[in-house]
Amino acid sequence: MRERLVVIGGDAAGMSAASQARRTRGPDELEIVAFERGGYTSYSACGIPYWVGGDVAGPEKLIARTPEEHRAREIDLRMRTEVVELDVAGRRVRARDLESGGEYWTGYDKLVLATGAVPVRPALPGIDAPGVHGVHTLDDGRALLESLGSASGRRAVVVGGGYIGVEMAEALLGLGYEVTVVTRGEEPMSTLDPDMGRLVREGMRGMGIEVVVGAEVTKVLTGADGRVRAVATGDAEFPADVVVLGIGVRPRTELARAAGLPLGASGGLLTDTAMRVRGLTDVWAGGDCVEVLDLVSGRERYVPLGTHANKHGQVIGTNAAGGYATFPGVVGTAVSKVCDLEIGRTGLLERDAREAGLRYVTATVESTGRAGYYPGAAAMTVKMLAERRTGRLLGVQIVGRDGAAKRVDVAAVALTAGMTVERMTALDLGYAPPFSPVWDPVLVAARKATSKVREAGW
Amino acid sequence: MRERLVVIGGDAAGMSAASQARRTRGPDELEIVAFERGGYTSYSACGIPYWVGGDVAGPEKLIARTPEEHRAREIDLRMRTEVVELDVAGRRVRARDLESGGEYWTGYDKLVLATGAVPVRPALPGIDAPGVHGVHTLDDGRALLESLGSASGRRAVVVGGGYIGVEMAEALLGLGYEVTVVTRGEEPMSTLDPDMGRLVREGMRGMGIEVVVGAEVTKVLTGADGRVRAVATGDAEFPADVVVLGIGVRPRTELARAAGLPLGASGGLLTDTAMRVRGLTDVWAGGDCVEVLDLVSGRERYVPLGTHANKHGQVIGTNAAGGYATFPGVVGTAVSKVCDLEIGRTGLLERDAREAGLRYVTATVESTGRAGYYPGAAAMTVKMLAERRTGRLLGVQIVGRDGAAKRVDVAAVALTAGMTVERMTALDLGYAPPFSPVWDPVLVAARKATSKVREAGW
Repeated sequence: MRERLVVIGGDAAGMSAASQARRTRGPDELEIVAFERGGYTSYSACGIPYWVGGDVAGPEKLIARTPEEHRAREIDLRMRTEVVELDVAGRRVRARDLESGGEYWTGYDKLVLATGAVPVRPALPGIDAPGVHGVHTLDDGRALLESLGSASGRRAVVVGGGYIGVEMAEALLGLGYEVTVVTRGEEPMSTLDPDMGRLVREGMRGMGIEVVVGAEVTKVLTGADGRVRAVATGDAEFPADVVVLGIGVRPRTELARAAGLPLGASGGLLTDTAMRVRGLTDVWAGGDCVEVLDLVSGRERYVPLGTHANKHGQVIGTNAAGGYATFPGVVGTAVSKVCDLEIGRTGLLERDAREAGLRYVTATVESTGRAGYYPGAAAMTVKMLAERRTGRLLGVQIVGRDGAAKRVDVAAVALTAGMTVERMTALDLGYAPPFSPVWDPVLVAARKATSKVREAGW
Repeated sequence: MRERLVVIGGDAAGMSAASQARRTRGPDELEIVAFERGGYTSYSACGIPYWVGGDVAGPEKLIARTPEEHRAREIDLRMRTEVVELDVAGRRVRARDLESGGEYWTGYDKLVLATGAVPVRPALPGIDAPGVHGVHTLDDGRALLESLGSASGRRAVVVGGGYIGVEMAEALLGLGYEVTVVTRGEEPMSTLDPDMGRLVREGMRGMGIEVVVGAEVTKVLTGADGRVRAVATGDAEFPADVVVLGIGVRPRTELARAAGLPLGASGGLLTDTAMRVRGLTDVWAGGDCVEVLDLVSGRERYVPLGTHANKHGQVIGTNAAGGYATFPGVVGTAVSKVCDLEIGRTGLLERDAREAGLRYVTATVESTGRAGYYPGAAAMTVKMLAERRTGRLLGVQIVGRDGAAKRVDVAAVALTAGMTVERMTALDLGYAPPFSPVWDPVLVAARKATSKVREAGW
């Protein structure tokens, strides 16, 4: 009997699921209907800063697969169509054609929820003024580029010091803007401990990016023409010809919430390891609308990242087509850069460890990404957290230049394997002068962390 | 009671051991005597190609610690002094002052053998002619630089296609030489499978380096002035104003052999996991004169690398000072580059797997080191070996550009942890467009290898 798979959301998780299901089962066995409220499918939102900055021709380059390409694989893709209601008991969804306004119910045997995330946009006075832009969708990117073209001056304020914020700061700096990043946090990159975030702030200041920390934006000020002219915090004003919002995202789960599906503390859907929505048999969820298991702390965590969304889609597509695959969880790896300053992190921060009830030691070392004598060897700071007594690796943060960011991958694998920092000291990592000092910085940190664990005693 | 530690060999393993022992125990508890036959201590032989190529000012920059610095730490370092006999039963060594020729016996309570390696130098006609150079010691580097200064033309032949050979090819190319690499192997880089070595050869040819494979050098031809003028193989001659030998090294263990110490198949000393020479209690050995346990195959293997030598020294120094540390073994990681072409490998090659009696599948994928749309994204080829049935990762080889080489570190940790390729598909590796496609090339290879394992069945 031909089954019907309905996918809600046409970006990474949803369309990966649809494609993977199609690879496994042909159209005579499985009908696949996918709904996308926007105008694009399968695009890289992570690439938007590089498009805006002029490094990437867009938006076409950021689209991995167009609606036409999906349709050529016999996926019934319905663009500009939003699913507005979910009837789990009746196994049907209500869809609205956003062009015509027409609505209809359609049934499913199997359902995939991949509704993504909503950018956080605080309800501040002036936030909707011309010249204030998010960078979540390709339409956002296009609007921002148009706005940059029409801006009368070259002062930009980026609200938010997370990875989108710092990447947008790089892009705007490259376009010749005077860039100010305003962040609530003690330091930029709140995905790092403040002592490591400080290195990012110092690096950014060295590039000419002003970073204002501990500052809450209270309103957006507009000029006589109605366009943004400044961003105000409690006690200061920052002139702006353009404002970019990079405050973060939250899971888009209103549909799921209304249907009574299980949500976690951050509002993301809760699934099992096969990415099935908990308590349901034929409903899966993945991508930016779900929480994932953090393998280090053992808790659910909200980590909206394209790389996870793609993995979720693969797993869901396999399972929805009758196969078996699992997504065991994440360890919290993320990499980013501001110009030539690279930032990597994986595992737990100090505050994460404390919240999880873990006692830990920290070790911070200064090294270089290449042999000290090799041209271009630049400073690299590695911070490592290890559990007291057991010595189990809990997390690594790295800030440096060439080769810093992806070095966290070593720690990501070690976290996945539950290694101790002492075991890590013996890791056989690649050594040659252009690529590493004879002791790789991660090994140096592991050695120091091992000593710290020993000194901390029982 | 004050003990006496004697160290034979003043490079990475020996002096790391001496320094680590000294950190743990002061001169009132432990006397440390170290013998070095050459004129330098603790130097980076790996850096010689970059010194010769002009990227690094040498030789001072390549010296991590001078004899004076070691002596300042109360290590009785005796330079230009060779240990010529070892009397294990009598706990003494016979030393020869190479300047004066004088000899003397001296006793020890604890002994460290760190005699290093001997460069392979086949007994070919003409091999000792002026203009023919090894690149093993700092004196070699100095002699080669002088020779390059006096060479009348700009044709260089490098004998050997291993990592020293390809790095020297890069250095000579950068100095404006026409470079020919002559190797016995089917392809250069015999530390890779031939299909991956072919990519290196193609890359080198693209840089203008001529690579002659399957060619055995039979003699070195000299001119009227006695200086090298060409290298001859069975059926061809390659004109050369300078010849560099990069054929490899073998363990320097004549002293150990004469004393009846246990040697492995490659002639390296055999130790236990604490780096003690097998069967002896107070004698340790490390660095380029030992064989190490290959954790993937479970066999001993000869892997002369500075990074292992440093780790050995740490372990030996700790143990010789009465502490406890171990060197669990290696997984066979090595990284290298020729100009912008990066080469990484870890674990077993196909021939290694066959010799170890392992049945395996291979998966080779083409990807890029960055998001495909990001500027500078270049091709990267990843080959992965996995055991049949179990799916255990056996090895990874990578050839590509920016970010290719150190990506093998992820596989090195996975090998250490005994991961299956299927488990690797879920690894949480860092993703951002400047650093990786949304599926890291290692993950793409793991997915393909997982399919291959499944297809191969039981």
